[in-house]
Amino acid sequence: PAQRVASFDQDVWSIFTPLAAETKAINLGQGFMNFGPPEAVQNAAKEALDRVEANQYSHPRGRPRLRNALAASYSPEFGRQLDPETNIIVSAGANNAMFATFAGFLDEGSEVIVMEPFFDQYISNITMNGGKPVYVPLRAPANAATQNISSSEWHLDIDELRSKVTSRTKMIVLNTPHNPIGKVFSEDELRAIGKVAEDHDLIILTDEVYDRLYYPPLQKFPRIAALDGFWERTLTVGSGGKSFASTGWRVGWLIGPEHLIKYALAAQTRVVFSVNSPCQEAIAAGLEVSLTEPLFQDQVDNYLQKRTRLSKVFDDLGLPYTCPQGAYYILVNTAKIRYPADYKFPDILDQRGDDFKMCYWLTKEIGVCSIPPSEFYTKEHWTLAKDFARFAFCKTDDVLDQAVERLRELK
Amino acid sequence: PAQRVASFDQDVWSIFTPLAAETKAINLGQGFMNFGPPEAVQNAAKEALDRVEANQYSHPRGRPRLRNALAASYSPEFGRQLDPETNIIVSAGANNAMFATFAGFLDEGSEVIVMEPFFDQYISNITMNGGKPVYVPLRAPANAATQNISSSEWHLDIDELRSKVTSRTKMIVLNTPHNPIGKVFSEDELRAIGKVAEDHDLIILTDEVYDRLYYPPLQKFPRIAALDGFWERTLTVGSGGKSFASTGWRVGWLIGPEHLIKYALAAQTRVVFSVNSPCQEAIAAGLEVSLTEPLFQDQVDNYLQKRTRLSKVFDDLGLPYTCPQGAYYILVNTAKIRYPADYKFPDILDQRGDDFKMCYWLTKEIGVCSIPPSEFYTKEHWTLAKDFARFAFCKTDDVLDQAVERLRELK
Ligand SMILES: CSCCC(=O)C(=O)O
Ligand SMILES: CSCCC(=O)C(=O)O
Repeated sequence: PAQRVASFDQDVWSIFTPLAAETKAINLGQGFMNFGPPEAVQNAAKEALDRVEANQYSHPRGRPRLRNALAASYSPEFGRQLDPETNIIVSAGANNAMFATFAGFLDEGSEVIVMEPFFDQYISNITMNGGKPVYVPLRAPANAATQNISSSEWHLDIDELRSKVTSRTKMIVLNTPHNPIGKVFSEDELRAIGKVAEDHDLIILTDEVYDRLYYPPLQKFPRIAALDGFWERTLTVGSGGKSFASTGWRVGWLIGPEHLIKYALAAQTRVVFSVNSPCQEAIAAGLEVSLTEPLFQDQVDNYLQKRTRLSKVFDDLGLPYTCPQGAYYILVNTAKIRYPADYKFPDILDQRGDDFKMCYWLTKEIGVCSIPPSEFYTKEHWTLAKDFARFAFCKTDDVLDQAVERLRELK
Repeated sequence: PAQRVASFDQDVWSIFTPLAAETKAINLGQGFMNFGPPEAVQNAAKEALDRVEANQYSHPRGRPRLRNALAASYSPEFGRQLDPETNIIVSAGANNAMFATFAGFLDEGSEVIVMEPFFDQYISNITMNGGKPVYVPLRAPANAATQNISSSEWHLDIDELRSKVTSRTKMIVLNTPHNPIGKVFSEDELRAIGKVAEDHDLIILTDEVYDRLYYPPLQKFPRIAALDGFWERTLTVGSGGKSFASTGWRVGWLIGPEHLIKYALAAQTRVVFSVNSPCQEAIAAGLEVSLTEPLFQDQVDNYLQKRTRLSKVFDDLGLPYTCPQGAYYILVNTAKIRYPADYKFPDILDQRGDDFKMCYWLTKEIGVCSIPPSEFYTKEHWTLAKDFARFAFCKTDDVLDQAVERLRELK
């Protein structure tokens, strides 16, 4: 094999999603919904399937209708008129937008600053394109092991971030709302991060796939691309799957200034050429609806009550957690839970963080699947994750209730 | 930008497809259909959209139903029982399968032997992954400029192929049915190519996206993976878009032995993570139908008459062409056509082969769009393509008839 893939372990998703299915566990692991896209979106997909042209290649930039809808939806968010021709490209999922950006900007040895914990795919996407991830920690407050905290309390030390910049640094990767923490970076934090990027002339790649899912008291989702002239150095990633409960459609996008977009497009055109056409039409329809109907607000209300629905069992069990400001994951401290010392784990969990064992046991014996967050840490820092498990609440209420019932057995 | 994208020109597809649309030309350029997928396939996509789970992430390997259908459909073709768990992965279009294979096997400086002319994306896909394309010509027979020939007469010199192998050669890329020539390599040719790969322990990556589209007198489509033990070193690429008139769905696949498939999968999981779920279900349904109904045979009959429908105008005009054994392109010698010497071409055609001008003029003034084949040659060899244009016949009969009518004006 090529060096770039030789060291890849099996990804956490292909371990726990099949495990949950085999064991008939309730799957609060991988972040996908057990409900479908809004009816208008689904119907638009079917309509598109009936149109000959919407079954054939789209332009590598993406379909005009989707780019227009994205421009209409996001221009107010970015505080500027986005040009559908030059500021927006559609990608085969958000992951593919990030891959294409790394491919478009990294050379052998380029450094990319990534906050740890990080969504795991960033790292392979960087190294596959010759880049070197350089880590800066997001730190939990000291009391996080004993009481509930807000994701806002996870802290980035800006001096530490700045200290990671070298002459080889090309890019800072930001993720807000953050997976797995749920942190939504404040305007002040974003300004400080943006300043570092500006001072050292770095590109900011911000993964905002959960941008439509943030909870009160937050009134507004702060975007670094909308602040202080950072637009010119920022590429923002978004996701149809997350916003319209269609994670399997693989429709994402990248928004930014033409002088950056064009190189991501150059890469993306070669990596996948173009993106599923009928589902692009459907996501466009969803965005169009969202312009006149409170689709995103209803969704937030819905997810907010789901957050409470699930988190109360952790309160009851006395398991401290991070209450997320955004996205649909709860990071729970599982230190109090004990599994039998002689429990037999499969070999596949050797050479992994201890939290893999806890999540495996919870899946198999309690019947609730979660994701071990050491997947989101470098090996040196696996111990930081060893007492944690990440539970997703992007599920129907009945499924969340069943999960709660099963988790109560831990009492 | 990164070095790997800095030299990328605009791709031919994003030039001619929009040009055809703007000028309302009949588009016989990019190879997509102006008709939709078979009804059963289309209905299966709609059914899938109604199933919650079929809208969410698929496994990176692809959906079980599709892998099972591929195994059922392709096992007889490969003369061996394919294991859906280990021998098959689904990709975001065939292009993405090739990209993932290069990513999985090429290191900086790895050489890949590619036949020229080549489908353009191969080259960027190789160089983006650190590889170096090494070219070996497919040569037209001497009489090709004056009379019609069969694509079988385009010739690969096996000694020349062998002479291109160095200690850095990792892979040979094969393409059969060949785009743009339409050549279907014979068993003897494949055996000779396979022998070179075997002697030098090379991987064979064979792009067989048009494998369901080959014409009489060919009775059987020869596959290198089914010959002489080459299976162990061969990865075969296929396409749902080509087989089921759904080029915009981006469902492709890769078939091969586990020891090779696993590294392509390792790469592919990071590049796109997974593939559009509802359209995977639909392509599975199409393959299932093809097991009991003569869907592919009917399609071949249909394309065969389309080939005649279009090619007869070139006969009438006295423009010699290569009659393709497979795929849906006709490579036509346009040397006799003259456009006004003072015709004004847009700047975008500077720094391109002369055939770009001819194809532009035909699109704009005759109203029929074709693709300039210099896109499929290295710059040094653009002159080989200067007198040619590639016309696609994957269009409804009425559209082909209209194209024929317009082309008659050239008389
Ligand atoms: C590649 S799995 C994607 C799902 C997800 O974002 C998550 O569960 O964190
Ligand atoms: C990337 S465009 C694909 C269409 C095609 O295969 C062709 O027209 O040659």
